[in-house]
Amino acid sequence: MNIIEVIAKKRDKKELSKQEIEYFVTEYTKNNITDYQAAALIMAIYINGMTDEEITNLTLCMAHSGEMLDLSIFGKNVVDKHSTGGVGDKVTLILAPIIASFGIPVAKMSGRGLGFTGGTIDKLESIPGYCTNISTKEFIENVQQIGISLIGQTLNLAPADKKIYALRDTIACTDSIPLIASSIMSKKIAAGANKIVLDVTCGSGAFMKNYEEAKHLSQTMKKIGRLAEKETVCVISNMEEPLGYAVGNNLEVIEAVQFLKQDMKEDVKQVVLELGAYMIKLAGYGDNIEQNKKKILQKIQTGEAYQKMVELVKRQGGDTSYLEHTEKFEVAKYRLPVIAKEQGYITSISAREVGELSGSIGAGRMKKEDPIDESVGIILCKKIGDFVKEQEILAYIHANDKNKAGQAVKKLQEIYQIQKNKKEKPNVILDVIM
Amino acid sequence: MNIIEVIAKKRDKKELSKQEIEYFVTEYTKNNITDYQAAALIMAIYINGMTDEEITNLTLCMAHSGEMLDLSIFGKNVVDKHSTGGVGDKVTLILAPIIASFGIPVAKMSGRGLGFTGGTIDKLESIPGYCTNISTKEFIENVQQIGISLIGQTLNLAPADKKIYALRDTIACTDSIPLIASSIMSKKIAAGANKIVLDVTCGSGAFMKNYEEAKHLSQTMKKIGRLAEKETVCVISNMEEPLGYAVGNNLEVIEAVQFLKQDMKEDVKQVVLELGAYMIKLAGYGDNIEQNKKKILQKIQTGEAYQKMVELVKRQGGDTSYLEHTEKFEVAKYRLPVIAKEQGYITSISAREVGELSGSIGAGRMKKEDPIDESVGIILCKKIGDFVKEQEILAYIHANDKNKAGQAVKKLQEIYQIQKNKKEKPNVILDVIM
Repeated sequence: MNIIEVIAKKRDKKELSKQEIEYFVTEYTKNNITDYQAAALIMAIYINGMTDEEITNLTLCMAHSGEMLDLSIFGKNVVDKHSTGGVGDKVTLILAPIIASFGIPVAKMSGRGLGFTGGTIDKLESIPGYCTNISTKEFIENVQQIGISLIGQTLNLAPADKKIYALRDTIACTDSIPLIASSIMSKKIAAGANKIVLDVTCGSGAFMKNYEEAKHLSQTMKKIGRLAEKETVCVISNMEEPLGYAVGNNLEVIEAVQFLKQDMKEDVKQVVLELGAYMIKLAGYGDNIEQNKKKILQKIQTGEAYQKMVELVKRQGGDTSYLEHTEKFEVAKYRLPVIAKEQGYITSISAREVGELSGSIGAGRMKKEDPIDESVGIILCKKIGDFVKEQEILAYIHANDKNKAGQAVKKLQEIYQIQKNKKEKPNVILDVIM
Repeated sequence: MNIIEVIAKKRDKKELSKQEIEYFVTEYTKNNITDYQAAALIMAIYINGMTDEEITNLTLCMAHSGEMLDLSIFGKNVVDKHSTGGVGDKVTLILAPIIASFGIPVAKMSGRGLGFTGGTIDKLESIPGYCTNISTKEFIENVQQIGISLIGQTLNLAPADKKIYALRDTIACTDSIPLIASSIMSKKIAAGANKIVLDVTCGSGAFMKNYEEAKHLSQTMKKIGRLAEKETVCVISNMEEPLGYAVGNNLEVIEAVQFLKQDMKEDVKQVVLELGAYMIKLAGYGDNIEQNKKKILQKIQTGEAYQKMVELVKRQGGDTSYLEHTEKFEVAKYRLPVIAKEQGYITSISAREVGELSGSIGAGRMKKEDPIDESVGIILCKKIGDFVKEQEILAYIHANDKNKAGQAVKKLQEIYQIQKNKKEKPNVILDVIM
């Protein structure tokens, strides 16, 4: 086989065979195909698209391009959850212990974050002592013994996806549904899942800017799931404004812990219940979604979910006193209020702009090697649909640099849109694609 | 400006501004844009096309990306000629002295060949002593004194085109009309021409496989010429079978010299007369094409054209006795006849296959550094439309390797298609796009 022929085929809008896709993925991973040849092929895929079968083959080839996490010891219904990303998204931190509290094994390798704030793994590392870098053997043992483990990517999962993802970023090919769908699904499959619940976020703070795109992506991933025999459910959720009230690493961990202690923010609750109910269903622990939601609330009310979180943190070496007393988390030097300049209803708090703002005060990183400032972030006090009086506090900026803090206050004041006419609170769950 | 934004624009089928094209060409030439970013942009151009204005801007930016040959000393009507390539194409060797014999300055930098046989410069070097590598100053002096000079590319002409051309080859983006057109025109403009006559070949042995494609390419180059204010005429010529009867370096030089000595093969003659007549017109030496053709024939009959060739070779250090006695050229060790297996009319001699065959016996090179075997090649005795008896000689293989020679004989026997029904000789000149 010859890469030029493969490129020419996709250039001419023809369907690539499984062998051709396999050849590309394998040889590109081995550096036998150059970046510029891969770039040409990816651009041709971007413009000319791919059939469901091509996307599925691409997904499976990328999933098998490196090590594969074998979770078969936990049976045939190993459920994983993934979000396409957003601002203030602490759902995994909440959901993982909830699901484990049902006796459903939770063995999850998560990534670090780039951009707005850290990823789940960065957030877990906010808890002093929590070790995200344990061996696969220990990871499996933890799940066997306490039903849950959350660690970083210690295996070389889906290296082809990593290479293609990095390349896409530099050649204006990020927002392609076939490429996004195959990237997400390949990582989940490599991470051992055979049942997948996806939180497909949409809005200014997400990859998918509107419902139509989110639906298209969801349907594409559903089809991959069907062809790859990995049952998949997509929950489309709103990411116009940040999720919950906390943005930033320590701040989000605190919000997550408080959630498990029954201080549940409404929008976070809706996402947690919806995703959780489908995870329970896919795991074979209950087919009735509304019943499942009730059971989740019970697990929170009885404290079982919180206890599972404590167990997890303890097991992985973390200081559980931080969970008991969340005021122990390091706080930023400056906590400046953001004041409403006028009276009215909040009509918009762009998640994207809030995300960029949190990144600018140090909550995120631009390069893998960059450090994250765990203590900084933003606490929202008002969200879309809320009424505010002039001079009322909209939010707080938590920052360690006085100048940056001052600039962030002004910026956030601009991000908050206030109008005379009442705007209803937006729906959080927009659709479920089963 | 940002290359990712430029790529995204073309990816979305939008028109690139002059500034954006200039940015890409300049920065890519300086290696500030990576090959994979260039590859993505070129694939987007291939698939989504370019407007005439974009193609013209690309052409001019590539032309100005390196040194420019300044021929303004020779006036405003500096005419150049270019062929899109073929098999057995020795037209420049014949046409350059003819045009110079009219007193029209011929200052031509030519390339070396890749693939089937050498280029014009390789062919000239078949003449012992002929120096193709002289300074630009000496080159200009030669034209001032004897009206003609033919040398290799001693200046760094259109380096952007060189980079893009090499990249296109590896990413299945060679056969794109905007990219071919801008590549050809940029080189001509950098080489100092302000009037251009193009031989757009079409058929199996050419880039353009059929008349429609050739016409499209011609029209595109015409438009570039108009927008760039370089008057351009395209002659579409047939390249289904090789041009003339000789393929290979020494063999083609001999055919060219013989032509100037009035031994004119009919198809070569038609191409020479057509291109030459338009070159004379563009140079301002006569508007009547038929009259111009007659004048060319006179220049050959009077020996003036041949004398100009002798002058050129002498001036550049070549041994002119090789022109007087072409039998002095080195001949290959083996000269094997190819015999007709059956009686009938020749219906096809695929130029592409003959070209590949000549390359396989050493007449061409795959890499710039490869040597060329000047003595090898193919002499056709019969062409399309000719009648042959069984056992009659169709052609001769000239080779220096006995095994290769034997294989080539068999191969050429297969390339010759012979059928019972008469096939008319094909038209050589298919169209002129003025």
